[in-house]
Amino acid sequence: MTGAGTGDAAGSIGVDLGATKTVAAVVDASGTVRHHERWATGADRGAEAVVEELVGHLRACRAASPIAVRAVGIGVAAQVDTLGSVRFAPNLRWREFPLGRRVAEATGMPVRVLNDVRAATVGEWRHGAARGERFVVCLFMGTGLGGGAVIDGRLLTGTSNAGGELGHLTVARNGRRCTCGNAGCLEAYVGGWAIAARAQERVLERPAAGAALVALAGGSIEGLRAEHVTRGASAGDPLAIEVLAEVRDHLADGLVGMSNAFNPRLIVAGGSVVDGAGSLFEDAFAAARARMLPSVAEPIRCARAALGESAVTIGAAVYAHEESA
Amino acid sequence: MTGAGTGDAAGSIGVDLGATKTVAAVVDASGTVRHHERWATGADRGAEAVVEELVGHLRACRAASPIAVRAVGIGVAAQVDTLGSVRFAPNLRWREFPLGRRVAEATGMPVRVLNDVRAATVGEWRHGAARGERFVVCLFMGTGLGGGAVIDGRLLTGTSNAGGELGHLTVARNGRRCTCGNAGCLEAYVGGWAIAARAQERVLERPAAGAALVALAGGSIEGLRAEHVTRGASAGDPLAIEVLAEVRDHLADGLVGMSNAFNPRLIVAGGSVVDGAGSLFEDAFAAARARMLPSVAEPIRCARAALGESAVTIGAAVYAHEESA
Repeated sequence: MTGAGTGDAAGSIGVDLGATKTVAAVVDASGTVRHHERWATGADRGAEAVVEELVGHLRACRAASPIAVRAVGIGVAAQVDTLGSVRFAPNLRWREFPLGRRVAEATGMPVRVLNDVRAATVGEWRHGAARGERFVVCLFMGTGLGGGAVIDGRLLTGTSNAGGELGHLTVARNGRRCTCGNAGCLEAYVGGWAIAARAQERVLERPAAGAALVALAGGSIEGLRAEHVTRGASAGDPLAIEVLAEVRDHLADGLVGMSNAFNPRLIVAGGSVVDGAGSLFEDAFAAARARMLPSVAEPIRCARAALGESAVTIGAAVYAHEESA
Repeated sequence: MTGAGTGDAAGSIGVDLGATKTVAAVVDASGTVRHHERWATGADRGAEAVVEELVGHLRACRAASPIAVRAVGIGVAAQVDTLGSVRFAPNLRWREFPLGRRVAEATGMPVRVLNDVRAATVGEWRHGAARGERFVVCLFMGTGLGGGAVIDGRLLTGTSNAGGELGHLTVARNGRRCTCGNAGCLEAYVGGWAIAARAQERVLERPAAGAALVALAGGSIEGLRAEHVTRGASAGDPLAIEVLAEVRDHLADGLVGMSNAFNPRLIVAGGSVVDGAGSLFEDAFAAARARMLPSVAEPIRCARAALGESAVTIGAAVYAHEESA
């Protein structure tokens, strides 16, 4: 896709297809949501039933839309191939499912399917925190660490649609195990699941120091999640602060590497960990900037994601709209 | 620049401006060198004298060229800004020197200046090991570790012309010091200077085990360089083999990260360390590939750089030719 604006009055539908809920939104050329539907995904019913319900909502969206609808973009937490098939969606438990083709056949509309983090990257780039920039890195820190990049005004796709997996930069030799099967990934230090695991380890090592955090988690060490750590740190809990200081340091390492690699003008960060952890992202960015190559450090700046949960629907709609132009 | 061929009979001059020698070559549309001059850079005479001699050779090249010459591309081991000024060239000892403008004024030709590693990346991409590919990462392992990337059929420039600095991916928290001022950079583990430093440390720790390596280096520990380590390893020296095994492991970490970030079809590697160290690059690639995300690992392959020392002149010529089209 190019960065060129479209300028027409038509819009497209963006879908955020999640494991528990799905949102579809008609998005116009200005990035404004003009109609919006939301429902339980019902992933346990299987892919065919999920698609059937999705198609019904897409028809309803088109019927209810105040503007013409050109295309459908679907953002999904999955590896998606260049033809719009889902290769693997762990949360939906789909493997090799031709999502794009099924929806296109059923609706008669052009359909584009992309990874939800890449969709959010497009959203932030075209209508959010990175508007008008040509070189952008986006990070979304929730349960995992998702990434996306805009290079010279185009979304980085990569040769098999997997580009921008910045959570899987290796930042430590023989480091902590990652859910991807590798060890030492950035996500294994700064993803929400990793923050929870690290906090749980600390609490087991030092029960007295960890008592307040465990209380925040409802009394269960196993129930201790990243949100308890960020909440504990905000309340001044020393162990939580210590855990987040490590997260900040590892995030800084990752930011140095991705900045030297991509030389972006802007790094945008969002997600529950960023939102919950005070100035952790900005602190990591400042520490990283001091360690980047000078010509990389000079133009770079950071920003918080601006679109919140709408980033995926807006980005998916924009992507499909422009790709089908 | 785009990946489109030009198809005309004109060529351009590519320059490899090094600290000790400079090469200028008239390169035609097929990547063939049609005329070629080489001289001592004489960097100690200062930038103005270097440019004066360069301009003389460019005029001579144009006069001697069997084909029309459209533009001049200059690859230089430097940070180069988006307007063609050298920001910092440590080996030439230049700072903030408007190389592109000076040469353009003196020759009347369009001039493009780019980092020499990025020029070599263009060379390998358009006429070397990565011909026809749209997503490529190039690594040049000599004294340092230079990198470049082709994204969707375009050279990655970055927002300030510094994109692709893959030697400065952080691969270790609080790791070894790098010449860039940071710590834990990939280059600080796999660059030639880093290999030499690591070998010297090992020899100091274990003089008996290191005696053969020191002999290779002419009897001086301080004189021990990467080439002695690669030569020692080829000859079966256990300490040299041990040092290169560490290099391989760190390189694998870096390859995993850059592959997950860029999702390239091809990783091309060249330079004296790659050339001298047997199958080190291929071994690191194989280890890395097993640890990449599956959708990244599947399409990726590796190749040796094919153009040798000509990569910079050919790439600089191609870049200038297409950018001035």
